[in-house]
Amino acid sequence: MDRKTLRTILTGVRAGRVPVDDAIDRLRGKALDDLGFATLDLDRALRRGFPEVVFGEGKSVEQIVEIVRHLSRAKQTALITRVGPDVYRAVERHFPAAVHHEQARLIVLRSGRVGTRRPGIVVMTAGTSDIGVAEEAAVTAEVMGNRVTRVVDVGIAGIHRLLAHKKALMSARVIVVIAGMEGALPSVVAGLTDCPVIGVPTSTGYGEGGKGRAALLAMLCSCASGLTVVNIDNGFGAGYAAALINRRR
Amino acid sequence: MDRKTLRTILTGVRAGRVPVDDAIDRLRGKALDDLGFATLDLDRALRRGFPEVVFGEGKSVEQIVEIVRHLSRAKQTALITRVGPDVYRAVERHFPAAVHHEQARLIVLRSGRVGTRRPGIVVMTAGTSDIGVAEEAAVTAEVMGNRVTRVVDVGIAGIHRLLAHKKALMSARVIVVIAGMEGALPSVVAGLTDCPVIGVPTSTGYGEGGKGRAALLAMLCSCASGLTVVNIDNGFGAGYAAALINRRR
Amino acid sequence: MDRKTLRTILTGVRAGRVPVDDAIDRLRGKALDDLGFATLDLDRALRRGFPEVVFGEGKSVEQIVEIVRHLSRAKQTALITRVGPDVYRAVERHFPAAVHHEQARLIVLRSGRVGTRRPGIVVMTAGTSDIGVAEEAAVTAEVMGNRVTRVVDVGIAGIHRLLAHKKALMSARVIVVIAGMEGALPSVVAGLTDCPVIGVPTSTGYGEGGKGRAALLAMLCSCASGLTVVNIDNGFGAGYAAALINRRR
Amino acid sequence: MDRKTLRTILTGVRAGRVPVDDAIDRLRGKALDDLGFATLDLDRALRRGFPEVVFGEGKSVEQIVEIVRHLSRAKQTALITRVGPDVYRAVERHFPAAVHHEQARLIVLRSGRVGTRRPGIVVMTAGTSDIGVAEEAAVTAEVMGNRVTRVVDVGIAGIHRLLAHKKALMSARVIVVIAGMEGALPSVVAGLTDCPVIGVPTSTGYGEGGKGRAALLAMLCSCASGLTVVNIDNGFGAGYAAALINRRR
Amino acid sequence: MDRKTLRTILTGVRAGRVPVDDAIDRLRGKALDDLGFATLDLDRALRRGFPEVVFGEGKSVEQIVEIVRHLSRAKQTALITRVGPDVYRAVERHFPAAVHHEQARLIVLRSGRVGTRRPGIVVMTAGTSDIGVAEEAAVTAEVMGNRVTRVVDVGIAGIHRLLAHKKALMSARVIVVIAGMEGALPSVVAGLTDCPVIGVPTSTGYGEGGKGRAALLAMLCSCASGLTVVNIDNGFGAGYAAALINRRR
Amino acid sequence: MDRKTLRTILTGVRAGRVPVDDAIDRLRGKALDDLGFATLDLDRALRRGFPEVVFGEGKSVEQIVEIVRHLSRAKQTALITRVGPDVYRAVERHFPAAVHHEQARLIVLRSGRVGTRRPGIVVMTAGTSDIGVAEEAAVTAEVMGNRVTRVVDVGIAGIHRLLAHKKALMSARVIVVIAGMEGALPSVVAGLTDCPVIGVPTSTGYGEGGKGRAALLAMLCSCASGLTVVNIDNGFGAGYAAALINRRR
Amino acid sequence: MDRKTLRTILTGVRAGRVPVDDAIDRLRGKALDDLGFATLDLDRALRRGFPEVVFGEGKSVEQIVEIVRHLSRAKQTALITRVGPDVYRAVERHFPAAVHHEQARLIVLRSGRVGTRRPGIVVMTAGTSDIGVAEEAAVTAEVMGNRVTRVVDVGIAGIHRLLAHKKALMSARVIVVIAGMEGALPSVVAGLTDCPVIGVPTSTGYGEGGKGRAALLAMLCSCASGLTVVNIDNGFGAGYAAALINRRR
Amino acid sequence: MDRKTLRTILTGVRAGRVPVDDAIDRLRGKALDDLGFATLDLDRALRRGFPEVVFGEGKSVEQIVEIVRHLSRAKQTALITRVGPDVYRAVERHFPAAVHHEQARLIVLRSGRVGTRRPGIVVMTAGTSDIGVAEEAAVTAEVMGNRVTRVVDVGIAGIHRLLAHKKALMSARVIVVIAGMEGALPSVVAGLTDCPVIGVPTSTGYGEGGKGRAALLAMLCSCASGLTVVNIDNGFGAGYAAALINRRR
Repeated sequence: MDRKTLRTILTGVRAGRVPVDDAIDRLRGKALDDLGFATLDLDRALRRGFPEVVFGEGKSVEQIVEIVRHLSRAKQTALITRVGPDVYRAVERHFPAAVHHEQARLIVLRSGRVGTRRPGIVVMTAGTSDIGVAEEAAVTAEVMGNRVTRVVDVGIAGIHRLLAHKKALMSARVIVVIAGMEGALPSVVAGLTDCPVIGVPTSTGYGEGGKGRAALLAMLCSCASGLTVVNIDNGFGAGYAAALINRRR
Repeated sequence: MDRKTLRTILTGVRAGRVPVDDAIDRLRGKALDDLGFATLDLDRALRRGFPEVVFGEGKSVEQIVEIVRHLSRAKQTALITRVGPDVYRAVERHFPAAVHHEQARLIVLRSGRVGTRRPGIVVMTAGTSDIGVAEEAAVTAEVMGNRVTRVVDVGIAGIHRLLAHKKALMSARVIVVIAGMEGALPSVVAGLTDCPVIGVPTSTGYGEGGKGRAALLAMLCSCASGLTVVNIDNGFGAGYAAALINRRR
Repeated sequence: MDRKTLRTILTGVRAGRVPVDDAIDRLRGKALDDLGFATLDLDRALRRGFPEVVFGEGKSVEQIVEIVRHLSRAKQTALITRVGPDVYRAVERHFPAAVHHEQARLIVLRSGRVGTRRPGIVVMTAGTSDIGVAEEAAVTAEVMGNRVTRVVDVGIAGIHRLLAHKKALMSARVIVVIAGMEGALPSVVAGLTDCPVIGVPTSTGYGEGGKGRAALLAMLCSCASGLTVVNIDNGFGAGYAAALINRRR
Repeated sequence: MDRKTLRTILTGVRAGRVPVDDAIDRLRGKALDDLGFATLDLDRALRRGFPEVVFGEGKSVEQIVEIVRHLSRAKQTALITRVGPDVYRAVERHFPAAVHHEQARLIVLRSGRVGTRRPGIVVMTAGTSDIGVAEEAAVTAEVMGNRVTRVVDVGIAGIHRLLAHKKALMSARVIVVIAGMEGALPSVVAGLTDCPVIGVPTSTGYGEGGKGRAALLAMLCSCASGLTVVNIDNGFGAGYAAALINRRR
Repeated sequence: MDRKTLRTILTGVRAGRVPVDDAIDRLRGKALDDLGFATLDLDRALRRGFPEVVFGEGKSVEQIVEIVRHLSRAKQTALITRVGPDVYRAVERHFPAAVHHEQARLIVLRSGRVGTRRPGIVVMTAGTSDIGVAEEAAVTAEVMGNRVTRVVDVGIAGIHRLLAHKKALMSARVIVVIAGMEGALPSVVAGLTDCPVIGVPTSTGYGEGGKGRAALLAMLCSCASGLTVVNIDNGFGAGYAAALINRRR
Repeated sequence: MDRKTLRTILTGVRAGRVPVDDAIDRLRGKALDDLGFATLDLDRALRRGFPEVVFGEGKSVEQIVEIVRHLSRAKQTALITRVGPDVYRAVERHFPAAVHHEQARLIVLRSGRVGTRRPGIVVMTAGTSDIGVAEEAAVTAEVMGNRVTRVVDVGIAGIHRLLAHKKALMSARVIVVIAGMEGALPSVVAGLTDCPVIGVPTSTGYGEGGKGRAALLAMLCSCASGLTVVNIDNGFGAGYAAALINRRR
Repeated sequence: MDRKTLRTILTGVRAGRVPVDDAIDRLRGKALDDLGFATLDLDRALRRGFPEVVFGEGKSVEQIVEIVRHLSRAKQTALITRVGPDVYRAVERHFPAAVHHEQARLIVLRSGRVGTRRPGIVVMTAGTSDIGVAEEAAVTAEVMGNRVTRVVDVGIAGIHRLLAHKKALMSARVIVVIAGMEGALPSVVAGLTDCPVIGVPTSTGYGEGGKGRAALLAMLCSCASGLTVVNIDNGFGAGYAAALINRRR
Repeated sequence: MDRKTLRTILTGVRAGRVPVDDAIDRLRGKALDDLGFATLDLDRALRRGFPEVVFGEGKSVEQIVEIVRHLSRAKQTALITRVGPDVYRAVERHFPAAVHHEQARLIVLRSGRVGTRRPGIVVMTAGTSDIGVAEEAAVTAEVMGNRVTRVVDVGIAGIHRLLAHKKALMSARVIVVIAGMEGALPSVVAGLTDCPVIGVPTSTGYGEGGKGRAALLAMLCSCASGLTVVNIDNGFGAGYAAALINRRR
C-alpha cells in the first residue's frame, strides 16, 4: 500500500469521514494487499499488456475453462500453455475469440486490441523438429507485446546458413535459440553477438544424452559468455524471459 | 565486408589503380575478415567498455601472464576468472595496476578510466556461503560498466528478510539470485518482480542433491515465469548476462 | 509372551493341569507369537482405528477382493491404495459398503462406525495438479481417525495466498505439504511454523528434474529445519505418518 | 498486526494524539512486522527452549563467532552444526561456556539453565560408523529439551539384537533410525512399532549405491508405513523434526 | 578334441584308412570344435538335463519357432524366456508338447522324460507382485533338474512371516530371494542362513529408486555376507545360477 | 572462392566486361559461398556418390516428401533415416524409384546408377536383435559406395562363432560391431584385428544398464585400443563413419 | 529352542526340580535365543571354521582392537577387512599371531590350526590392477577353509591367455572373476564353463563409466547364464559367497 | 593352423616320419596357437612399427619397469601411458633411451630407428586446457609412424579461428578433435570436412555436465555425420584409432 493511499485513509479517519472500523478493515486487507503481488501483477498486466498464464498440463478441461472465464471477466488476456486440440475445442465453445496456436500448443484469449509491438526479439531453431518449442516461445513473446523475428533450421552442421542471418542477429536485443541433440547453436550464437541469448534445449535426439539432456548440459557448460538457459522444451519460459528483457523502462 | 569498401576496391581495379593480385589478396583476406567476429568484438569491447575474459581455471600462471600482456598491449580491459592468490601475485608483479577480488576469485586489469556506471542490477544471495559466487557476478557486471546493488542472506527460511528489500527488487532492471541447497529463492523473487531474473545455483549443501544439483534442478523446474539459469557456481556467466541485459541500446 | 502368561502355563504344568506336549506347542507357538507383530498390530488396529493397508498396485483384482474378504471377516477396516475404477467396481460388487475416493485412487471399507476425529492435520498443495496426491494423504489420515484441513494451490509464485492461511498453519500439529516442480513450498511452510512438516514431491513438471525429481531433491536439501520427506507421489505414506504424529499418547 | 493494536493507532489518529505521518510509519512497519516470522520464532525460541541454529559448514570461523556473539546478547541458546575442533577452539576463547560435542560435530552455547527433559525419543543406529550422525540427532533433540534413549549397532544382519530392545521401541513416541549401506533398519523398525519413524541414511558404504545413496533410496521406497526421511547424514534435521514431534501442545 | 579322438584319426592316417584331406577337414573342424564350447555345452546339456536357452525378447515369433525346431531336432530341451501368450500359441501349433508357464513368461519344450529332481533350492518373495519373477527363477531351476521350494510374501514389514519358514531356510542349499521396493529381504535372509543367497531386485515401486533401482542398490550394498545379485527382474539368471550351485559334482 | 575464379571476375571488371555492381553481387555471394560448405558438400556428394541425409525422426511426412523432391531435382541421392512404412508409402507415391530398407528403417532414392562398390567394411552383430541397427549401418555404407560383409549373432557367449569368421575380420579395413546387453563384442574384436573398429551399443537389455547404457559404457571404457564409439542405436552414424574411413584418397 | 530342550525344562518343572521362575527366565531367554542367529552362527563358525568378520572401514583402531579381543576370547577366528598398515600395527601389538595380507587389506587372527583346505575355487583377474581385490576374495575364501587357484591378467584383449587356463576353468566348482574397465571377462568365463561364476567389478578406469560403473553394469547385463555379481571392489563378498558355494553338505 | 602346415604334419604321419604322439602334441598346441592372436600381434607390431602399449595407471613403478624390460628384450617399442615424472625417473634409470612426453604423460622407449612418417592426421583442441590430452593423442599417433599437424585453441566462441585452418582441415585424412565444456567443436569440424573425425571430450568444466560429461554427451548426440567418440580424456585411444585409420593397406 503506497504512502498516498495510506494518507488518504488516515486523514479520512482524522476528519471523521472514515469510521475506525472501516479503516481497520481496509488496512488489514491492504496489509495483505501490500503483499498481494498477484494483485499488483494484475495492475501491471492490464497496464502493460502482460497476459495471465495458465499452465494447462495437469489441469482438467473444466478447470481450464473455469479459470479462463475468471480471467475473461477481469478483462485479462489469458495465455494457456501445453494444451491440445481437445482443450481448444472446449475453450472455443465458451470463448469464440480464443485463438489456437497449434504448433505452439497454446491458446490465447485477448482482452482489448493488440497495440504496437516492440521489435528486438529473434527466435531461432537449429532444426526442423525444434519449431514447436520455438513457436511456444515466439507466440508467448508476441502476446506480451513484441514483434518476433523467426529464423529456422540454421544448426551448426551448416554454419553458413546461420551466417546468412547475421543482420538479424546483429540487430536483435535478445535472442532465443532452440536446439536439441548436441545443443551447440546457442553457444555459437552467443559468440557472434553482444546481446543476451536464452538457450532452450529440446527433447529431440535419442540414446545417451537424448531427450534434451545433452543439449541442456551443453548449454549449461557453454564456453560463450552471456548465455542463460531454461529447462528442456520450455519455450514458454524463454519467450516470457525474452519479453521481460525486451521491455523498455 | 560492406558494399562501400567492395566498390572502392573494384572501381580501383577498373581504373587500374589497384592491381588484380592486390585486389585478390584483399578480397580473400576480407572474406575471412567478414567472419572475423573476434575482431568486431574487439572493436565493440574498446568502444563499450566490455572486458576481454580469460578463464583462469586450467591455465598455467605463465599462460595467464602472457595473455594479460597481450591484452594490455591492445589496450583491453582484462578480466581473469577462477584464480587464487598465487596467480594474482604473479600477475601483479608484471602489472601492478591489476586488482584482486579475492572472494570473487577474479583479477581485473583496467585499460583507461572507469566511466559512469549504469544502475539497474541487483545481486542477491540466499545464504552467507553464496557470497563468493555473488561477488564473481557483481564484480563482472561492475567491470562491464554497471552499478550493482548487493542484497545478502535473504533465503526463504525467513521471507520477511527478503520483503524488507522490496524497494530494491522493484527498481531493479535485472536481478541475479544466488542460492544453494533447495535453490528456491530465485523462484520466489521472480514471483515478486516483473524484471528478468537469473538464477545461479551454488555448490553448497551435501547428500543427495548436494553440490548444487538440487538448486539447479529447482531453478530449471521453477513455476515462476521469467527465470533463466546458469550453471552451478557460474557467477561470472550470470553477471555477464545481466550486464548484457542492462545495456541501453 | 509376557511373564504372566508364561506363569499361567508353567503353573498349569506343575499342577498337572497342562500336559507337557500341550505346553510345548503353546510355548513354541508363543515364541513365534512373541515375534508376531502383525498380530499385535491387529490388536492395535482394532483398538485404535488403524486400517489394514493393501497396496493395490501390482496386485490382480482377484487378489485384492480376496484380501478384502479376509480383512472384512476379521472386522478390520481396509484401505486399498493406488487403484482405479475397475478395481472399485469389482470390490463394490462384493462389498457394497466400500467407498471409492476417486481423486485419491483409494478404496475404503470400514468396519464399525467412525468415531470422533482428532483435529491437527493440515494437508496443503502448491498447485492444482497436486490435488490427487493430497487427497491420498488426506483420506488416509481421515480413515485413521483424524480431521484434516485442506489448503490448495498456495504455491510460492503467489506467497500472499499462503499467508492468507497463516491461522490454519499456526494451529496445525502436523502439516503435509504437497508440491511438484521446484518443490519449494514445504521449505517455506517449515520456515513459518514450529510443527513437523512432511514434504511430498509430486511427479508434475517435465524436462531435467521433472517427474518429481527436482521437488524431491529440493525437499531433501531444504534449509528449513523440521522437514521430513516421503517419496514422489507417496500421499499415502505422508498421510499415515501424519496420523501417527497426531496420535495422543 | 492484531485488531487491537490497529484500533489504538487509529483512535489515536482520530483523536489527533498520533500524527498522520507517525501512523503511516508504524502501519507500514507493522505490515512488515506482520510477516516477521523470525521475530515470532525468536519469541517462541526464548519461551520454549528452542535453540537458534547456525549451519557451520561454509562459514568462516570469524562469521560463526560473530553470529554466536549476536545470539548470546539476545539470550538465545545457540546450536552450531558441522564444525570441527578448530571452530570450537575459536568459539571457546570468546564463550568459555560453549560445549563441544565432538562426535556430533556440534557446539552448544546455552542461555539459562536446562529444564526437565521430555522422554519419548529413541535414536538408533544400524552400525558402529553411524554413531557420529546419531549423536548429531541426539544432541540436537537434547538441546531442544528432550531426553534421548540411544540404541546402537542393531543392524538387520543380527535381528535378535534389535528385538532385545523391543521395550525401548514400544515405549518411544518417535524413533530416529540411522543406517548406511542397504539402509533397511528404518523399514524393519517402522514395521515393529506404531510411532513415527524418521530414517537417516548415512554415507557409509562404497561402490554403486555407496555414500548413502542406496540407503536413501531404500528408505524412500520402504514398504513400511509411517516412515519419513531426511537427507544423507542429516542427523541435525532428524533430531530437530523428532523434537517437534515430541513436543506436547 | 580329446587325445583319444586325435589318436584314432592319426592312426587311421598312418594306416592309410583315412585320406589326408579328410583328416585335414576333420582336424580343422575339430580345431574349431576344441573351441566349440557350445558343442561341449550341447554334450553337457544332453547328459545333465540342462536346457538350451532362447532369450525371447527382441526376437520375432518366426525366429523363435525356427530356433525351437532346430533344438527339437537336436533332442535338446528348449527354454524360451520373456514371451507372452502370442508366442506360445505359435510355438504350440508346431510343438504341441510345449508347456507355457504364464506367470513366468516361459515356454518349455522338453526332450525326453524328466528325471528325479534334486532338492535344495528355495525361491522366496517379499511381496505378491514379485511372484512372476519368482516363477521365472523357479521354473528355470526345475527345468534344470531341481525341486524348488516356494515361499511367498514374507517381506520385512512382517518379519514373523519369514521366521515361520526358518526350517525351509535352514535346509536349503541355495536361496533365491526376490524383492522390490527397498529390497531388504535378501540381506535379512543372508543374515539368517549359511548357504549362498542370490538376490533378485524387481521393478515394483515408483518414484525415486522405483523400477527396482533402490532394491538393486540395497542388495549390492548389503551388510550381509554371502549375498550375490543379478539384474532387476532377472529371475531366469537367478534360477540358472541357483541350479549351477545346487549341482552335485 | 578460388584464386582463379576471382581473377576471372576481376580481369572482367578491369576489361569493362563485368559491371562493378555485378561483380559486387558475385563477390558478396561468393564471400558467403566461400563459407558455403553445404555447397561444397553438394559438389563432393555428386562427384563421389555421397548421399544427402535426411533425419526422418521428428519430421512430418509432408516435410520429408518436400525435402526429397528438392534433392531429387538437384540430382542428389537421398537417404532418409528412422522412418516407418507409412513414410515409405507417402514417398513411394511421388518417387516410385525409392527403395525401402525395412529392417534398417531407411528409404533410399538414388540418382544415377550405382557404380562399383569398394570392399573393406564388415558389419557384425552380437545378437539377433541387433540386426535392425546393423542394417542401418550396412545400407548407409552401401549407399555411400561400399560393399559390406555382414556377420551376425557372434556374441561373446560363444566365442568360437566369432573365431569362425576370423578371415573376414582379418581382411577388413574397418569393422562396425553392433552389440547390446554387456556390449563386450567390440572390445574382443578390436583385440583380434589391427583395423579401426566402431562400436555401436544397442538398446536391447533391461534393468540397470538396460536400453544400451551398459553397452555404451563398456565400449567407452574398453581396454582394447583402436575402438571408437557412436551413440546407442546409431547405426547410421557408424555406417557413415565407416564409409569415410574406407574411402581411398 | 528345540523340542528336546523344552521337554527337559518342562518335565523338570512338573517334577518340581525346576522352579517356575527359573523356567520363566530360561524360556524367555531361550525365546530370544531362538532368534539369536548370531549365537547359532557362533556355533556354526566354531564347528565349520567360518571366521567372524569385522568391517574395518569406518571403525577406529581402538574399536577394532576391542572387537578382536572379544573374538579372541571366544576362540573365534577374526577376519578384519579394509584396513591399512596402521591398523595392523595396532592389532599386532596386542595379538602377535595376527597376519597382515597387505594387498588384500585384510588382517587374519586364527583360532586353532588350519585344517585341510577344500579345492574348487578359482579367483581370476582381467588385469594387473585388479589383484588387490582378487587377494581380498582369495584370502577370505582361504580363511574359510578353501584352497584357491589364482589366475591373473587374462583380460579379453588377449583371449588366448584365458584359454591357456582352460583346465583350471573346467575343474573349478566356483569361479570368482575380477574385472574393471569394460568388465567383460566374467561373461566370457561364464560362457566357457558350467559352474557358477561370481563377477566383481573393480574401480579401475576413468571417464564415463569409470570407477567400476561400466564393469558393474556389464556384469549385470551379461548375456551369459550363471553369472551373479557383487558390488564394485567387494572382493570380500565374492570370496565369502564362493566359500559358501564350495562347502560340502 | 593353415592347410599347408596341417598337410605337412599329416603326410609326415602317413609316411611314418612323424610319430603319432608328436603329431598329437603339435596339433593340440597349434589348436591353441591358432588362437594366439597376441603372437600374431607381436609379428604385426614388429613389422609395422606399432608399439606395445602399457597402461601405466594402477601399476606400480616396479611392475612397469619389469614390463618395459620384457618388451625391450623382445625388441618392441614400448608406449607407457598415464604416468608422471616419478615413473619416468625410475624407467630412465634402467633405460636411458626412454623419452618422457610430460604434457602427454607418456613414456616412449623405441626399438630401432624411426622411419618416415605418414602425414594425414590433424589433432585439434578447442581450448588451452585441452592440450595435455591432445599431446597424448598426437604422440601416440607419432609413435605409430604418423606425422601429426597440431591446431590449438580454435573453440566455437571464435569460429574465425577455426576457419583460418581450413586448409589443414581439408587436407587431413583423419582429424582428432579435443574439447571440454560444451564439446561442440567436433560437430562443427565434422560438418566442415569429409574425413572421419574422432571426438575426445575432456574433463574441463565444472557444475552440472562438468568433468567432461556435457562434452561426451554432445559428441554422442552430434547432428554431424562421420563423428565417432572415445571416452573422456582418452587421448591415447583417439590417437591409436587415428593411426589405424591413417594406415595404408
